[in-house]
Amino acid sequence: MEYITSVKNNKIKELKKLLTTRGRRKAQKYLLEGEHLIKEALQNNISLNEVYVTTEYLNRDRLHLIRDYFPQAIQITEEVAQVITDTVHPQGLVSVVDMPEQPDLDMSQGRWLLLDEVQDPGNVGTMVRTADAAGLKGVVLSPDAVDLYAPKVQRAMQGSQFHLPILVNDLAETITVMQQHDLIVYGSLVDERAQDYRQVKPQKDWALIMGNEARGMNSALLEKVNANLYIPIFGKAESLNVAVAAGIIIYGLSR
Amino acid sequence: MEYITSVKNNKIKELKKLLTTRGRRKAQKYLLEGEHLIKEALQNNISLNEVYVTTEYLNRDRLHLIRDYFPQAIQITEEVAQVITDTVHPQGLVSVVDMPEQPDLDMSQGRWLLLDEVQDPGNVGTMVRTADAAGLKGVVLSPDAVDLYAPKVQRAMQGSQFHLPILVNDLAETITVMQQHDLIVYGSLVDERAQDYRQVKPQKDWALIMGNEARGMNSALLEKVNANLYIPIFGKAESLNVAVAAGIIIYGLSR
Repeated sequence: MEYITSVKNNKIKELKKLLTTRGRRKAQKYLLEGEHLIKEALQNNISLNEVYVTTEYLNRDRLHLIRDYFPQAIQITEEVAQVITDTVHPQGLVSVVDMPEQPDLDMSQGRWLLLDEVQDPGNVGTMVRTADAAGLKGVVLSPDAVDLYAPKVQRAMQGSQFHLPILVNDLAETITVMQQHDLIVYGSLVDERAQDYRQVKPQKDWALIMGNEARGMNSALLEKVNANLYIPIFGKAESLNVAVAAGIIIYGLSR
Repeated sequence: MEYITSVKNNKIKELKKLLTTRGRRKAQKYLLEGEHLIKEALQNNISLNEVYVTTEYLNRDRLHLIRDYFPQAIQITEEVAQVITDTVHPQGLVSVVDMPEQPDLDMSQGRWLLLDEVQDPGNVGTMVRTADAAGLKGVVLSPDAVDLYAPKVQRAMQGSQFHLPILVNDLAETITVMQQHDLIVYGSLVDERAQDYRQVKPQKDWALIMGNEARGMNSALLEKVNANLYIPIFGKAESLNVAVAAGIIIYGLSR
């Protein structure tokens, strides 16, 4: 097994670049970390370019797994693992994956989640996971949302990135296409003048937009949607976390 | 204004201890960071022991605010701020607060959220915020949950910690007391043999237990509750994030 012990190794220098949005876009590759995500990728026919394992990971009784599944794996030290991951305690298994081409999706029907400039990696990942759990058809991210391929986003999606298509597209354009096909598009607002999500009549197909954590949805989009929904606040909190709010509305609309 | 420039200053050494659970328990004090949290504390009559501000914070046109509200504030350098906070980019305003005494709560009625061994600071904080938004009466944490006074938990609560009482108590004992007063206690399970949360008849008062992120609820508690609820998974995700699941069930029960 090839063994890399230096952080100055050329392969490692190239991998390090994949920790930035710019580096990922240039290489059209991204990093997947941890046994759970890498298993999910394999189960969903995602091909792995290279696999890196730490000595510590191999010592945790995982040598048979590596021999069976990743015969070409490259062994690295903990120090090298630190350099190519953004976690304090790397999980010991890292892989390089090609960025998929943008899927060509039929937006004329189905249920959709649209994320307008959502910035927190954990929030985006958690919402993709919720969209998967609720059986939505796909997720559309605005181009100014956090990068889908950032390691933190990939981790928070917990494999859901391989279960449903995720597209980056202009949301105004997306809404126009959906509405041309009579799909109802809901915005979300922290404002009691909007419609209480509990009053919405169950529909077969719809799209829901969640906005930026601090500023909410872009006003241009608020005007385009069929209706804006809000979640009533019964206590003293100013608002709900955006991923929690998405879960409440998605499951509310799915009843 | 007193100005501390050394991380070896005795006051700073004492503050640093408040970053650990052990240090906080010994001193019976904790740290609050950031303008939003500190304003929320003041608005809810929480007295601040000491206030520390960075030079950078003062330069951001905040000198008038400090002069008006915190005349005794102590100025610190960015380097010192780094040492007494756990964030990469400290917000420049830190205060020391006395831990409140455990509130003596009437658990015979109302709506409650019980957290069994939940470990992620963001999840606990987000659930307290959701409990506040939904107008619940209080939150009870099991003694083995993440420490309520950890800076990350305090940040994620976004002020909700001052809006509703939060108690640390044995959950088996808590359930017994609630059930003696005919309060219905729901557990939550990722298992379709449990009851679909959408089938629950709306009740005025109830308690909901959310379990550990990986292991779920303790089996001893699962047997004590009146019913265990689950959220149907329509897609391929294994489960929902615990804070999202809490939001869905709490708002589902609040309809």
